[in-house]
Amino acid sequence: MTTGTAAMRVPLSKRGARVPASVGAEPHDIIALGSGHGFPGVFPDLTEMARTALNEYRHETLQYGPTLGLPEMREWIADYLKENGVNVTADNVLIVNGAKHGLDLISRLLLDEGDTVVVTAPTYFTGIPIFKTFGANFVEVSQDLDGLVVEELEKTLERRAHERKALPKLIYNVPDYHNPAGVTMSRERRRALVELADAHGMYIVEDSPYRRVRFEGENEPMIKAFDRADTVFILGTFSKLVAPGLRIGWIVTSPEFVARLAQLKSDLGSCPLTQRIILEFCKGGHLAEHTTRVQNLYRSHRDAMVAALREHLPEASFTVPHGGYYLWLTLPTHINADKLTARALEEKVGIIPGSKFFAGAGPQGKGAPTNHIRLCYSHADPDEIAEGIKRLARAVRAMNS
Amino acid sequence: MTTGTAAMRVPLSKRGARVPASVGAEPHDIIALGSGHGFPGVFPDLTEMARTALNEYRHETLQYGPTLGLPEMREWIADYLKENGVNVTADNVLIVNGAKHGLDLISRLLLDEGDTVVVTAPTYFTGIPIFKTFGANFVEVSQDLDGLVVEELEKTLERRAHERKALPKLIYNVPDYHNPAGVTMSRERRRALVELADAHGMYIVEDSPYRRVRFEGENEPMIKAFDRADTVFILGTFSKLVAPGLRIGWIVTSPEFVARLAQLKSDLGSCPLTQRIILEFCKGGHLAEHTTRVQNLYRSHRDAMVAALREHLPEASFTVPHGGYYLWLTLPTHINADKLTARALEEKVGIIPGSKFFAGAGPQGKGAPTNHIRLCYSHADPDEIAEGIKRLARAVRAMNS
Repeated sequence: MTTGTAAMRVPLSKRGARVPASVGAEPHDIIALGSGHGFPGVFPDLTEMARTALNEYRHETLQYGPTLGLPEMREWIADYLKENGVNVTADNVLIVNGAKHGLDLISRLLLDEGDTVVVTAPTYFTGIPIFKTFGANFVEVSQDLDGLVVEELEKTLERRAHERKALPKLIYNVPDYHNPAGVTMSRERRRALVELADAHGMYIVEDSPYRRVRFEGENEPMIKAFDRADTVFILGTFSKLVAPGLRIGWIVTSPEFVARLAQLKSDLGSCPLTQRIILEFCKGGHLAEHTTRVQNLYRSHRDAMVAALREHLPEASFTVPHGGYYLWLTLPTHINADKLTARALEEKVGIIPGSKFFAGAGPQGKGAPTNHIRLCYSHADPDEIAEGIKRLARAVRAMNS
Repeated sequence: MTTGTAAMRVPLSKRGARVPASVGAEPHDIIALGSGHGFPGVFPDLTEMARTALNEYRHETLQYGPTLGLPEMREWIADYLKENGVNVTADNVLIVNGAKHGLDLISRLLLDEGDTVVVTAPTYFTGIPIFKTFGANFVEVSQDLDGLVVEELEKTLERRAHERKALPKLIYNVPDYHNPAGVTMSRERRRALVELADAHGMYIVEDSPYRRVRFEGENEPMIKAFDRADTVFILGTFSKLVAPGLRIGWIVTSPEFVARLAQLKSDLGSCPLTQRIILEFCKGGHLAEHTTRVQNLYRSHRDAMVAALREHLPEASFTVPHGGYYLWLTLPTHINADKLTARALEEKVGIIPGSKFFAGAGPQGKGAPTNHIRLCYSHADPDEIAEGIKRLARAVRAMNS
């Protein structure tokens, strides 16, 4: 369609004008250590589950599904959370089209122009534009090896109260194998965070896609396990444990909020076909075995990345993640990671500069620390990872020279 | 989760507070002439397409898909629209999770609190709460047998200009086999609507889920076929022609808006698995045959409803729809359709009162005409339809007595 003779247009909405008219292209022909894609070889064979879903359940799977999700799916998730020490029922569960969709819905429920969201620095970078779409501002909080530093947040809130600034509406965090930092919040910090949120009437979003992608040790209790006042929304997904392409996730909250979020969902129910395929997979007892397979595979990927980094980039520092998909690399301070990312691409390795993970930063990451990168070990295989880190090291050397 | 001791909560967003905390329950054990569900017997066998999608295309279908949709899917839709006289390419197509999701995204792109949307009276009732979520007001326009009365809209705009009211931002319509009115817009009205929108810089949303569910005659050109200035957004879906459960629809607009809408989409791409299943179905040449099957089936459903209405409810008037899923019934003016709906439910037949289809009406349809109902002939079979209309007639008799 060519642009014709229309009069000057009515303007877009504030939201519509705020988002740029561009979509990030995914790089090809390079070793991808940037995006959090799954390893293709670990995707399960779902053919038999799809056959059952499309035959025995055809009237369910090809019809409009229930707005809140298939009742069996909601029950299965409630049971799954009970195994995680969270006492909820199917009434607390809303099925959504992936965790990102869930975050968008929670933002729609809670956020007006100018509201404030608490995030870690660094934080999940896909969440930042979602919050910004709703006109949110940010309070950033540091992390250490025990995760989000609750004491620091407490002091920030006190200072804001003195300055008569409004309370943040919600606290967003990935407490298990944090994206991008890889750290896990301690039990005590989780409890303290719920107490702090309750004391100020704020909500918490516990985004936990990597919880079962665990390589060592035991999980901490979920933040939701300390919740006594419907303070905590859980965001969950099958993307990181089973397959991203299924686009099925969940929100756990009070039944009242489940109903309000469903009204904001505007999609006539998430896909009943993929829900049924997942149910057949989970109820058929395949999930436990598959979880072990995923854990073993990504552990070997992580090990390959850690070994390659120690060999080829000894000047970089990092905390070894005990689960999840990501490793947060700190480079010598004179290395500018934004420039390194471009240089690495010339060496045919894709990484994401750390500056993109700071919500408080300006356009092009202005004001954010410049010597971090996020490395993802899920998508490439161990040999590619080793080669990718070699290439990255070459790019770092080129920056030094 | 029981309610505990949290301090008073930060308030929900305006959007979040505006939607009620309730979800419509679907009735059971009754003949459903209310909702626009598909007839279960006409859903295609997609087993073989799913097998191919999950084996040959596993690395595509279980991985994150492209944000804009599978390139082949976008191309297929562009070609499909070319058959409808609309000259677009894959760059004009964004894949979404059903047409309702598309309408939500377009509203996000365009609407701010207090903006105005032009709709027909009556209009698609699922659209009304979406527009309201974004704080929209409505201008309602009448329809006759040639669809939306463009001359009336023109006069309304002139009057609003005199009153120094802001221009509406968009005009929403279902031009083919209108939901709920069943009428189809004439070619001349379509052309006039585009000219009027262009003259005032407004956008048009052409929501066309029923276009190929045609029983007689030929289609009019799409509104988009008259578009010379990227005025018209097309909303499309596979729900009404193939199966609602697939949750795949599309928006057609300028490449710039495709990119902006994708940024607002927040779902990391629509499900690549269901996209690939649909592609295998369409590219395998099954769609044309299936379309004929759907047309023949729903024509027989429509005929059954028309015959039963003429026999059992001769006092009601209606226009015979030449396609689509719905028949708009006008009852004698002393019949209150809201009360009739409750009475019909006692007779075990589900209908939707016409008052729900008027966007300008107040809560509980206040101010809307009260003697219409929407009947849907897609979901029940011809025998059930005949029995359902008999039951409806009994309910009308009971109202008279």
